[in-house]
Amino acid sequence: MKIAVINGPNLNLLGQREPQIYGAQTLDEIMTRLTSEAQALECELVICQSNHEGVLIDQVHAAEQKGCSGIMINPGGYTHTSIALRDALSAVSLPVVEVHLSNIHAREPFRRNSFVAAVAVGQICGFGAFGYSLALRALLNELQRRSCSV
Amino acid sequence: MKIAVINGPNLNLLGQREPQIYGAQTLDEIMTRLTSEAQALECELVICQSNHEGVLIDQVHAAEQKGCSGIMINPGGYTHTSIALRDALSAVSLPVVEVHLSNIHAREPFRRNSFVAAVAVGQICGFGAFGYSLALRALLNELQRRSCSV
Amino acid sequence: MKIAVINGPNLNLLGQREPQIYGAQTLDEIMTRLTSEAQALECELVICQSNHEGVLIDQVHAAEQKGCSGIMINPGGYTHTSIALRDALSAVSLPVVEVHLSNIHAREPFRRNSFVAAVAVGQICGFGAFGYSLALRALLNELQRRSCSV
Amino acid sequence: MKIAVINGPNLNLLGQREPQIYGAQTLDEIMTRLTSEAQALECELVICQSNHEGVLIDQVHAAEQKGCSGIMINPGGYTHTSIALRDALSAVSLPVVEVHLSNIHAREPFRRNSFVAAVAVGQICGFGAFGYSLALRALLNELQRRSCSV
Amino acid sequence: MKIAVINGPNLNLLGQREPQIYGAQTLDEIMTRLTSEAQALECELVICQSNHEGVLIDQVHAAEQKGCSGIMINPGGYTHTSIALRDALSAVSLPVVEVHLSNIHAREPFRRNSFVAAVAVGQICGFGAFGYSLALRALLNELQRRSCSV
Amino acid sequence: MKIAVINGPNLNLLGQREPQIYGAQTLDEIMTRLTSEAQALECELVICQSNHEGVLIDQVHAAEQKGCSGIMINPGGYTHTSIALRDALSAVSLPVVEVHLSNIHAREPFRRNSFVAAVAVGQICGFGAFGYSLALRALLNELQRRSCSV
Amino acid sequence: MKIAVINGPNLNLLGQREPQIYGAQTLDEIMTRLTSEAQALECELVICQSNHEGVLIDQVHAAEQKGCSGIMINPGGYTHTSIALRDALSAVSLPVVEVHLSNIHAREPFRRNSFVAAVAVGQICGFGAFGYSLALRALLNELQRRSCSV
Amino acid sequence: MKIAVINGPNLNLLGQREPQIYGAQTLDEIMTRLTSEAQALECELVICQSNHEGVLIDQVHAAEQKGCSGIMINPGGYTHTSIALRDALSAVSLPVVEVHLSNIHAREPFRRNSFVAAVAVGQICGFGAFGYSLALRALLNELQRRSCSV
Amino acid sequence: MKIAVINGPNLNLLGQREPQIYGAQTLDEIMTRLTSEAQALECELVICQSNHEGVLIDQVHAAEQKGCSGIMINPGGYTHTSIALRDALSAVSLPVVEVHLSNIHAREPFRRNSFVAAVAVGQICGFGAFGYSLALRALLNELQRRSCSV
Amino acid sequence: MKIAVINGPNLNLLGQREPQIYGAQTLDEIMTRLTSEAQALECELVICQSNHEGVLIDQVHAAEQKGCSGIMINPGGYTHTSIALRDALSAVSLPVVEVHLSNIHAREPFRRNSFVAAVAVGQICGFGAFGYSLALRALLNELQRRSCSV
Amino acid sequence: MKIAVINGPNLNLLGQREPQIYGAQTLDEIMTRLTSEAQALECELVICQSNHEGVLIDQVHAAEQKGCSGIMINPGGYTHTSIALRDALSAVSLPVVEVHLSNIHAREPFRRNSFVAAVAVGQICGFGAFGYSLALRALLNELQRRSCSV
Amino acid sequence: MKIAVINGPNLNLLGQREPQIYGAQTLDEIMTRLTSEAQALECELVICQSNHEGVLIDQVHAAEQKGCSGIMINPGGYTHTSIALRDALSAVSLPVVEVHLSNIHAREPFRRNSFVAAVAVGQICGFGAFGYSLALRALLNELQRRSCSV
Repeated sequence: MKIAVINGPNLNLLGQREPQIYGAQTLDEIMTRLTSEAQALECELVICQSNHEGVLIDQVHAAEQKGCSGIMINPGGYTHTSIALRDALSAVSLPVVEVHLSNIHAREPFRRNSFVAAVAVGQICGFGAFGYSLALRALLNELQRRSCSV
Repeated sequence: MKIAVINGPNLNLLGQREPQIYGAQTLDEIMTRLTSEAQALECELVICQSNHEGVLIDQVHAAEQKGCSGIMINPGGYTHTSIALRDALSAVSLPVVEVHLSNIHAREPFRRNSFVAAVAVGQICGFGAFGYSLALRALLNELQRRSCSV
Repeated sequence: MKIAVINGPNLNLLGQREPQIYGAQTLDEIMTRLTSEAQALECELVICQSNHEGVLIDQVHAAEQKGCSGIMINPGGYTHTSIALRDALSAVSLPVVEVHLSNIHAREPFRRNSFVAAVAVGQICGFGAFGYSLALRALLNELQRRSCSV
Repeated sequence: MKIAVINGPNLNLLGQREPQIYGAQTLDEIMTRLTSEAQALECELVICQSNHEGVLIDQVHAAEQKGCSGIMINPGGYTHTSIALRDALSAVSLPVVEVHLSNIHAREPFRRNSFVAAVAVGQICGFGAFGYSLALRALLNELQRRSCSV
Repeated sequence: MKIAVINGPNLNLLGQREPQIYGAQTLDEIMTRLTSEAQALECELVICQSNHEGVLIDQVHAAEQKGCSGIMINPGGYTHTSIALRDALSAVSLPVVEVHLSNIHAREPFRRNSFVAAVAVGQICGFGAFGYSLALRALLNELQRRSCSV
Repeated sequence: MKIAVINGPNLNLLGQREPQIYGAQTLDEIMTRLTSEAQALECELVICQSNHEGVLIDQVHAAEQKGCSGIMINPGGYTHTSIALRDALSAVSLPVVEVHLSNIHAREPFRRNSFVAAVAVGQICGFGAFGYSLALRALLNELQRRSCSV
Repeated sequence: MKIAVINGPNLNLLGQREPQIYGAQTLDEIMTRLTSEAQALECELVICQSNHEGVLIDQVHAAEQKGCSGIMINPGGYTHTSIALRDALSAVSLPVVEVHLSNIHAREPFRRNSFVAAVAVGQICGFGAFGYSLALRALLNELQRRSCSV
Repeated sequence: MKIAVINGPNLNLLGQREPQIYGAQTLDEIMTRLTSEAQALECELVICQSNHEGVLIDQVHAAEQKGCSGIMINPGGYTHTSIALRDALSAVSLPVVEVHLSNIHAREPFRRNSFVAAVAVGQICGFGAFGYSLALRALLNELQRRSCSV
Repeated sequence: MKIAVINGPNLNLLGQREPQIYGAQTLDEIMTRLTSEAQALECELVICQSNHEGVLIDQVHAAEQKGCSGIMINPGGYTHTSIALRDALSAVSLPVVEVHLSNIHAREPFRRNSFVAAVAVGQICGFGAFGYSLALRALLNELQRRSCSV
Repeated sequence: MKIAVINGPNLNLLGQREPQIYGAQTLDEIMTRLTSEAQALECELVICQSNHEGVLIDQVHAAEQKGCSGIMINPGGYTHTSIALRDALSAVSLPVVEVHLSNIHAREPFRRNSFVAAVAVGQICGFGAFGYSLALRALLNELQRRSCSV
Repeated sequence: MKIAVINGPNLNLLGQREPQIYGAQTLDEIMTRLTSEAQALECELVICQSNHEGVLIDQVHAAEQKGCSGIMINPGGYTHTSIALRDALSAVSLPVVEVHLSNIHAREPFRRNSFVAAVAVGQICGFGAFGYSLALRALLNELQRRSCSV
Repeated sequence: MKIAVINGPNLNLLGQREPQIYGAQTLDEIMTRLTSEAQALECELVICQSNHEGVLIDQVHAAEQKGCSGIMINPGGYTHTSIALRDALSAVSLPVVEVHLSNIHAREPFRRNSFVAAVAVGQICGFGAFGYSLALRALLNELQRRSCSV
């Protein structure tokens, strides 16, 4: 089974950027660890990161073509502004799990709205890099639930 | 006469994406048919599609340089969020016709506002792929009206 | 086939009223031309105009009784204020196309909301009198689509 | 010189309706007195009252056709809701004076907005029946000012 | 004793219009049944229906002149937009009961506000045609209460 | 047949509390009378009152377990603030009728919103203690309608 | 009889400031003419102008002490922002007429709200310097009405 | 190590209430399974459920006194309305994880705001009963992180 | 004379909870000291604290039955959300003084609104435990003022 | 010890202005009594009143230069509108107590916001002239608390 | 060439007031340095500071009379509240440059709106005392541009 | 010293696009002149322009890697919509100066909000191409201030 892991803007700076908030791990370190966890759970990750809204939309489209069964996405700042990204996620027929490093509901008011939420199975936020591990389990659980209910 | 036809994010998925809403035709099929109609009306289409806001802005700028007389644009999800795209359309001196496949005024509240509308001649929405044919006629009519009033 | 064409308040002043905005044609001239176009397309128009919200509602009800297959409506100023007119359009089982001479989305904020939009197939605005021709084609196309999908 | 005096909904009840607010005079008494004042100022009044928004719009259109030089209007409850009436006043080329018996700015919030105000020379409110006398003088002064500035 | 029963826009379509929502009875059937109930309670109904806001205002004025002791009103779509109708109800000195077929508080947000409510004794909504029977009883009870408290 | 009658906060003070608004009857007197009416209609009432939001939720849950066929509820001040109570009413599968002694739509703005309305068949407000009689009839009528439509 | 005429900020610039909007007359010229009109009506004016909110409040207080029977006030830009000025007008027991040179309801949204309106008899706006003459007559009429009703 | 698991209103109905949304498991079944998982992770759960806001606040206070190291809370309908519950969570010095069965950000607008979020480490929503397992892991990870950073 | 002192949610934690904000005194210590002060002023305190909105409402009702002459209340988090508590305070005929330890107007926006304020004599906030002493004096002064004005 | 007592606009009218609301005492009487109370508490008052926002700001600045240890301020109508006054209070390093004669939270909505509150220790409102005595005690208590905590 | 430099409320406290925010220089020091810079650029400064809104308006009026060619203004707290000051700046025919020491767009929401901005050439904020030097250059550049374009 | 100069969407059209608003200079001309000025001040500029939000974010990230000491940015239309760009600027540790050619605070309401402002030292707008010179000086001054305060 393949899972797309799509990382949005500024996540390439992880580890350098405000470590007291976002933690000391780089995105590479987090993705490497997540890949190990995924392997243990017998699934393969298709990872990307981009600061470009359009590239993220392309990657959402590509996830289906590459045979992924689900999408984990941390849309970064586009969470709150991108209707186009929401439409992309809505257009593909894969289950989506939304993950954020920080607790977006405890920050500035403009970070409370998520355009992605309405087209996602669920949301995990506030647990730093560990949120990716949780999101992976949540997505696998959802995929299992769906295959059972068929 | 040349007309730029600019298609925004997720329109590359047409035909696959929620056909009960957006119809069963692909963008290629729609554009092919529109090109035939345009030829019958003695005009040439310069067609593009992109999921990237920046590419769409570049294409708006390019429309003038390529000698287009007007722009038909379906800005997709950027309709409601892109002030930069609006500024691009405002900056070039070509008449703009805005077209949407679905009736954006009958959907979620966040789809009601169009930043593009304020710099367009008019808007056509809700008629699916046929909206492009209407938009083409509307744009040609506007161009004729302008050449007459000189 | 019969089509109801319902014109709302102040449209009787067309040609006199601010011609730089609304054009120099009178409503009679526009309707005469539209009738010719309709005949060429083998359909008959049932035309009315009224400044009275109640009369417009009555005419919407009458459209069905007179055997019309669809409604083209330019609700004028009632577009933005009449829930009763919206309910009338919703109550009859005919497809509705909304047309406006000016681009209502590029004018005062209070003209952006259309109570009619939610019960219409689509909207055409900003193309002056030519918008009626487009709306006629859009409505016929919709009727054809519906008869096909039966 | 002729002046149209257009009275909106519920003003036919004047004298009966809440006299502590609206005064004890009937609309007939007020109009009779206003006619005398107008005659002394060498002008003729064309008076109407209706509870129908559409009739009021018709009367606005008629004012110009009857050769009136200006319009005094008390739009009653339509002041706050009728975009169609505003469009009618905007469409005719006559100066408009808006008059209200009560001080609408000291009442419920929904009475503060006037769609008519934006297309009127000015507004007089809160002075009961005497407001009509003031409005007549204001309108004549405006007509004189306009004829001078030609 | 006489009671005015005033029915607003689109209620003439009852029985035809979306029966799953509004029920299968026509307005005539409902009014016939209500008249029987009223007779059993020794009161006479003065019934009207109109799609015209102005006619409804006229009928409110007429209710008092015809010697009615109270008003039952289903203002339809004007409930949410008509300040003029509210003023009319406020101007006559009769108790008013507001009735709606559907539960307006469980529908679109724009149906939640009632301009009529502020000048009514109370409101009954959501019980279909049976709501008229309830409203009749509520109005008679209110009239009895008032005559007792004199 | 059993009907649950659930009374919310401060209703235990009825008869003492602002009698000019809420009437001179105590809750006991109202419930005694309602019980008689119910007996005449061959149904039994399961009555409770509490100032505690949690107790009201418990009672909603209990209504189903006690074999009630429907719920009449006057949620008092919790009408406007309790999403938890709404969820409780939504969770049980019984028809709900909402009743208020005063006309909540004619009072302070914060009393206009009812979280309960969206999960109720309908609402009756403004008729004092008599509203309970109306609500009983409305609920029985609804139960009859449902059993017929099976 | 004495009348206070209180002129707010920037009115000292009249005649110089945007004459196409505010007219070519200076405040002195307007006040001189108004004084003549007042004398003909047997009343004396106590005139002041200040750009200082505090001085305007002091002058409102002084109006009563100087034996004025009423206040005409053009609060200029403080109309929309000064709760302190409103409290001053509310505190003295004199009738107040509010006058504006321009039609404040047809300008920027922030000019629509008047804190003064709620404590004034009425408002006159949009008639330039002539508005002062109207306001004088309105105030005298109000004083007469009050003395009659004693 | 002990963890408090606090369940809010209506969660006692789980398994009965709308199973297509909330799943077929009862709260007891979910808690039994969670207890097993906790034991495997060498921690003990202190579980409660209440429909009473006050009881939930009491339980938050008690969590600290019972020696719990952290709190998992599903505040149900109180999530969106209870400032008192938020203050309770803020007052105790334990880390809090917020969990919801459904994706609250994809439902009615009034479910988007969480007063609890601002005082929680993070939020997990949309994954049904499995969300509790994720929340347990998230809380243990947070506790480990905190003990490491000392 | 007896005075009810009603303490709302989380106040039982005083002294433990964020002492830098709320001070180091426990509620018992504050109440003991207040009781001494009250005795010196020849009045007896009836003290309660609860985290339950319903209990607080019950206690408000009980205050009158226990012969209290006035109510001091610190509604804690219910200040901003409880219409039911406001109705309870409004229903009893005792003067109410509202007290808060912190300056609620200098904190988060959602703490600015007090539903209690509209039914209280006045409000004291920001002075920590000393605010209770001030509130006691304010309430006694109010009671004296009322007995004098009889 | 010296305390500045700063009184804002319209407070010079106390005793004359609406005595049923603001009491029958003049500002002089209140200040004389407060001075006695202050002397008994061994502190000296530096009193001023002005209707001018600028003078109030000057007095705030002067308070520090005159050696005052704290400021009691009743900002009157400027409470709700003056950011400049707030900045002045924020700029000096003295503790501030805000006092209002009436309960501003129980009046018009525009009186609910206080720009001063955010820079004050606390607020006392609704207790008439007695509020000054309370504010004096509150300020002295705060000064004592601060000197202790050094 | 003469330039008016108008400083608003609380700027007289510069150097004393929160130096970590506003810098350690007094207004005198800043103005002395700015005067030197101006001399080097062959222009003379007409400097004032006031805490009084009215005095600032007077100074704006005076700027033109004193022969100034432009205005630099730091309106302090009046930036966000004074429509009267805006009107004054709009009334004189001089170019205006708005300057703020702090970055007002990065502070409290109520500091984001500037009534002055709409009548200014441009705005400079966030650069402390150095902002005055920038503003001087910006104003001179604007004056040069205008004289060139004549 | 190196300074990054980042130009956002549509700025490549400068000189062609609405020259009466944006001036006749091309971006190349402006940048060439700015480079000369920078050289005179002994600093090197790293210039870019893009219509792509993602490229701008990349360039912000690159600024630090290229050894720039600060960033000048004109974010064009992304100013008002891009939270991702704001996060990028916030993530790098360089001082940021925001510059706009036009006075964004004097244009459409949607141009008033700047997401960039909250993470910038300050903002300069309204001075056309000259604004870049001002911004350069402002940034150098800020860098000097920071190096001094170390």
